[in-house]
Amino acid sequence: MTLAENRSFSELRKVLEDMNPADIAEEFSEIEDDKTLVIVFRLLPKEQAAEVFSYLEPEEQRRIVDGITDRELASIVNEMFVDDAVDFTEEMPASVVKRVLQSADPETRKAINQLLKYPDNSAGSLMTTELLRLKSEWSVAASINYVRRSCSELASITYAFVTDDQRHLNGVVSMKEVLAAPDEALISEIMDTEVIFANTLDDQADVAERFKKYDVVSMPVVDGEQRLVGLITIDDVVDVMEEETTEDIYKMAAMAPIEESYMSTSVFSLAKKRVVWLLVLMISATFTGLIITKFENMLTAVAILTSFIPMLMDTSGNAGAQASVSVIRSLVLGEVHFSNIFKVIWKEFRVSIIVGICVAIVNFVRIVVCYYIGMYSLDPGQNIYVIAGVVSMTLVLAVICAKFVGCTLPLLADKAKLDPALMASPMITTIVDAVSLLVYFGIASLILIK
Amino acid sequence: MTLAENRSFSELRKVLEDMNPADIAEEFSEIEDDKTLVIVFRLLPKEQAAEVFSYLEPEEQRRIVDGITDRELASIVNEMFVDDAVDFTEEMPASVVKRVLQSADPETRKAINQLLKYPDNSAGSLMTTELLRLKSEWSVAASINYVRRSCSELASITYAFVTDDQRHLNGVVSMKEVLAAPDEALISEIMDTEVIFANTLDDQADVAERFKKYDVVSMPVVDGEQRLVGLITIDDVVDVMEEETTEDIYKMAAMAPIEESYMSTSVFSLAKKRVVWLLVLMISATFTGLIITKFENMLTAVAILTSFIPMLMDTSGNAGAQASVSVIRSLVLGEVHFSNIFKVIWKEFRVSIIVGICVAIVNFVRIVVCYYIGMYSLDPGQNIYVIAGVVSMTLVLAVICAKFVGCTLPLLADKAKLDPALMASPMITTIVDAVSLLVYFGIASLILIK
Repeated sequence: MTLAENRSFSELRKVLEDMNPADIAEEFSEIEDDKTLVIVFRLLPKEQAAEVFSYLEPEEQRRIVDGITDRELASIVNEMFVDDAVDFTEEMPASVVKRVLQSADPETRKAINQLLKYPDNSAGSLMTTELLRLKSEWSVAASINYVRRSCSELASITYAFVTDDQRHLNGVVSMKEVLAAPDEALISEIMDTEVIFANTLDDQADVAERFKKYDVVSMPVVDGEQRLVGLITIDDVVDVMEEETTEDIYKMAAMAPIEESYMSTSVFSLAKKRVVWLLVLMISATFTGLIITKFENMLTAVAILTSFIPMLMDTSGNAGAQASVSVIRSLVLGEVHFSNIFKVIWKEFRVSIIVGICVAIVNFVRIVVCYYIGMYSLDPGQNIYVIAGVVSMTLVLAVICAKFVGCTLPLLADKAKLDPALMASPMITTIVDAVSLLVYFGIASLILIK
Repeated sequence: MTLAENRSFSELRKVLEDMNPADIAEEFSEIEDDKTLVIVFRLLPKEQAAEVFSYLEPEEQRRIVDGITDRELASIVNEMFVDDAVDFTEEMPASVVKRVLQSADPETRKAINQLLKYPDNSAGSLMTTELLRLKSEWSVAASINYVRRSCSELASITYAFVTDDQRHLNGVVSMKEVLAAPDEALISEIMDTEVIFANTLDDQADVAERFKKYDVVSMPVVDGEQRLVGLITIDDVVDVMEEETTEDIYKMAAMAPIEESYMSTSVFSLAKKRVVWLLVLMISATFTGLIITKFENMLTAVAILTSFIPMLMDTSGNAGAQASVSVIRSLVLGEVHFSNIFKVIWKEFRVSIIVGICVAIVNFVRIVVCYYIGMYSLDPGQNIYVIAGVVSMTLVLAVICAKFVGCTLPLLADKAKLDPALMASPMITTIVDAVSLLVYFGIASLILIK
C-alpha cells in the first residue's frame, strides 16, 4: 500500500476515513509487513476498525490480533456484529479464541459462546442473535418509539419478529408495514402469522434453498422448542451459496472440495483431495485397456484404426459430459427431478441424433481429406471410404450412448441419494470410453474383418 | 392440485389466503388445465394475486394472461413491483406486451417502458424505479413522517437516497440510522456521502461482483449524467449470480450457455449449443491420432503398449482438469489473479509430484498383478517390470505436464481477456492427450526399442 509508505499518518487517517471498509480491507491485505499493518489499523476510529476487521481475510485478522493489546481486541469484538465475531473466532487458533472470549464483555461473550456451539454449516452457526423483537399487543406508535431507541445495536431492522412471553415466534412484520400503519394500530393487527423460518440445526444449503424459493432477505431461526433464537440475513446466505457452488464444481472435476480458498490450501491437502478420484478413475480405465487388448489382432491387421481411438474417446467423453453437466445443474437449480427421467432421455436422444450426425459427417470428410493429402497410409486391400464409414458410424452410436449414460447417471444418483455432481465428466468419460471402444471394435469386426 | 379438485371454492379461497405466495405459485404450476388455473387464480385477492403472479414461471404467467380480461391484467400489472412487471413483460410475446402496456396505468406504463429500453443483462434492466428519496435539508422527524406516508408504494426502504434538485445522487442513509437519530437532526448530518452505486449500462455480472465485495443488500443506479434513476435489490442479484454460475458451468463442459431452463430449451437449440465445441475438439483430437500413426511401428512391435493408451489419456486429462477447474473457480471468486501465476505453477508442480508418484506406484502394482493373473500376454523377450516402469514413468511426467497446462491456460486466457471457463476440462483434455502420448512414446522408444 503506497499510502502507508509515502504519506504522513495524519494524512493517511483522513484518506481512510472516506474509504469504504471493503476497500480498506482490500488495501490492508497487500501490506506485507506485520508492524505496518498494525500501525495503519490503529489509525482507524473504533467503529470503522471493527467494520474493516469483519471484511478482512482470516490471515490478516490473525496478523492484526497478534499485534494488538487485549484491550484493543476487546473493543473490536464488542463492536462487531455477533455473527461476524463468531465467523472470525471460528477461524482463529485456540489461543486467540481464548483471548477473544476473555476480552469480550460478558454479554458478547455469552452470545459468541452460544453461537459457537452450533455445528458447522448449520443454520445456528450462520445466524446473529441481534434481532428486532416487538410484542403483539404494542401499538405502532409505541413500536416505532421502541425501534428508535434500540435499533443502533441491531444488524437488521428490515423485519421485526413478534414473540410471546416464552419467546415462541408468533409473527413477523416488515418495518415498511409498521411505518405505513396508523399510530394506534396494534402489531397483532398488522403482523403476518405465516412465518418462513429455519431451525438451528437445519443444513445451511437447505436454508439457502428456502431463501431462494421464498425470495426473502432475512429469516428467523428457532430452536428445538420453537423459540426464536436468531436471524439469518441474506448476505451470509450469498456466501453459503457460493461455497456450495464451489463444492459442486470441485466434485464435477473429480476432486473433494477444499475448505478454504485455493491459495491458502496446503499442497499436501490439495494433493489428498485430488489423488483419491484419480486413482479410482485410473483403475476403472483398466477395463478400457482390456477391451483394446482383446481386439489387439484386429488393430494389428488394420493399424490405422488405432489412430482414431483418442478422437473417439474424447468426442464421446465430451458429448457425455455435456449431457451430464446440463442435467446436474438442472437438478441443483430444481428444474429437473427424477420423475422427469423419460422426458430427459427422450430429449437427449433427439439431441444426440442431431449432434452425432453432424459430427460424423464432418469426421468422414476430414478422414478422406487427410488421406488424400497423405496423412494416413493404408495397407493394400483397404478402402479409405470404408474406414471413414466405420469411424463415422461409431461416432453416431457413441454419441447417442454417451448422452444416454450422461443424462441418466446423475438422475439415478440423485434418486439413490448420492450426490449427482459425482456423475460429471470424469466418471462419465471413463464409462463412455469403454462403451465407445466396444461399439468401434464391434462395427469394425462386422465390416472390415471377413 | 388436489385442493382445486376436491374442495369448494370458498374453502379453497380460505386455504390460499394463509399460504405463502411462493408455495401457491408452486402449486399453480401443477395445474394442467388452463381453465382451472384461471379460475383458481381469480380466487386470490388483488394484492396476493399480483404477488403470486410474480413468482410464477413465464409459461404459467402466459397461460393466465391468455385467460383473463384486460382489466384484470391491468390490476395485476399496476399492483406488481415495476421490476417484476418488466421481468414478466420481457418473457411475453409481442401481442401480450402490447396488452400489458395498454392496460397499465400511465405512470406504470412509463416506468415499464423506461426499463424495457435498457439492454438485456445491464444494471438498468435489473433495477426498480420505486425507491425512497429524502432531501438533505429535511429533519429526521420530517423524514420519518414522509416515509410513513409514502412507503407502501416502495419495494425497499432499507436505504433512503438523498438527491439534489437535478436528481444527482448525493448520499445514502439507512432507515436504521434515520430511526436511531434524534428528531431534530438533519439528513445531511447523518447521511453517508460515499455511495456504492452502479451505472445503468453496467453489466449485471459486474454489479453482482460489487454486491459481493461490499456486502450490501441494495445498490442505487445512476444514468450517464449521474442522476439517480433506480435501485437494485439483492434478491435480483442472487438470480443473476445463479445465471452467471450456470453459464460458467456450461462453458466448462464445452457448451454455449442456454438462455432458458434446460427443460424449456428446444432440442434443436440444445444441439446447436453443443455441436460447435464438439466439432472443434474433435478436429483437434486429429493431432493426437497423428501421433499414434507416427509410432505405429512401435505399437505393432510392443502391442501391449496400446492397451495403456486410454488409461494414460484419461488420467492425465483428469489431472489437468482438476488443476484448471480449481484455477478457474478461484479466478471467478477473485482469489487468484494473473500476477499469481508463478505461485500457482509452483503450487501445482508440488501437488503434481505427490499425486503423480502415488498414481504411478498404484499403477505399477496394478500392471504387475494383472500380468500374473493372466490379463496381459507378452511377446518373448519382453519384461513386465520394464513395461510397467515405462507406463508409470509416463504417468508421473504426464500428470506434471497436465497440471502445468491445466493451471496456466486459464490464467493466460484471463490475461488475454478471454473467458477462462473455456479452458476447462475438454480443452485441457485435448491438449494433454497429445502431450501424454508424446511422453509415452518418447520414454518407450528410449527404453524398449534398441
